[in-house]
Amino acid sequence: MTARPRLGRRPGESVTREAILEVARRKFADLGYDRTTMRGVAADADVDASVVSHYFGSKQGLFTAAAALPFEPEAVLAELLDGPRETIGHRLATHALRIVETTDGRLQITGLIRAAASDENAARMLRDRITGELLLPLAQELDSPDAQLRAALASSQMVGLIMARHITGLQVLADTDAAVLADAIGPTLQRYLTGPLTGAQ
Amino acid sequence: MTARPRLGRRPGESVTREAILEVARRKFADLGYDRTTMRGVAADADVDASVVSHYFGSKQGLFTAAAALPFEPEAVLAELLDGPRETIGHRLATHALRIVETTDGRLQITGLIRAAASDENAARMLRDRITGELLLPLAQELDSPDAQLRAALASSQMVGLIMARHITGLQVLADTDAAVLADAIGPTLQRYLTGPLTGAQ
Repeated sequence: MTARPRLGRRPGESVTREAILEVARRKFADLGYDRTTMRGVAADADVDASVVSHYFGSKQGLFTAAAALPFEPEAVLAELLDGPRETIGHRLATHALRIVETTDGRLQITGLIRAAASDENAARMLRDRITGELLLPLAQELDSPDAQLRAALASSQMVGLIMARHITGLQVLADTDAAVLADAIGPTLQRYLTGPLTGAQ
Repeated sequence: MTARPRLGRRPGESVTREAILEVARRKFADLGYDRTTMRGVAADADVDASVVSHYFGSKQGLFTAAAALPFEPEAVLAELLDGPRETIGHRLATHALRIVETTDGRLQITGLIRAAASDENAARMLRDRITGELLLPLAQELDSPDAQLRAALASSQMVGLIMARHITGLQVLADTDAAVLADAIGPTLQRYLTGPLTGAQ
């Protein structure tokens, strides 16, 4: 009976789980979804592959757990709305860039974007978490017409910037301060969220 | 001697080569770089795997040939510059969206973007072809300061929009007419290429 699987949570379980997730985030970000394997994550986390399966079931389960975003959409939403409507684009840009300035935040977001390029589950997560839970409620709170389209446009610029800066590697973006980039894309996000979408700028 | 490989170009060779490339484009776009195999492309093109190797050498060679962009940067550049400076953002948006409205153009561009998310060779191609050969010369011709940064910002919005509309699948973008999208992102590209990058919009 000594080999019976232990159920229930023991001290140490959450430590192991967190260690696996940290390795998984790094691997998903470095290799993308396709080339990351349960076995490779287990090896790097120094646990048996069965332990990874026990906690996460499948690669998709592992990915979903690892891709938990480094922010709470509701909290960010409240923070962004707490300020003048005419500068919300700049606050949104600053907030997003601040997240990718941290190693963990960058690994989580770039891992999700990389995976979303080739995996429909990851793409859905990107749509749900960034557009659905953050940008759409933001556009709706701002009472702009066409909230869906506005949220999608803002998402396209934010994801596009993170992709160009941190994934496909446009060097000048990596070399440019977050504050300068926030100044550059802030007006874009502002117009997408609150400005006219057609006609002259 | 009947099995001797035939060298030199025969009628039919370019047809086979084109057929392989068409399959490869479709597979790279549907599956991404990692999950596309030489063997799978050969099977779908109804040729032996050795034929694919003969023409393209490696998966990277196949990818490079398949990802030939559906436009000539020099020709596009000349076309874009042939018009008022203050509407160049709209012309650029319209041109890019016209390309992804065609099946071939869409498959080639989305294949390249998908692959660039996980493969450095594809990322380099994306940087070289879209930013280096098209957007950077465009920003330089417009005599704007910080041409590198401007080209990178314009690229981030264009690639971000194509990714959101055609890869990660934000439905509202897929449902919105190209003309409406060009009106929406045209002013963004215009400001990135010619406008002030800092301070109020």
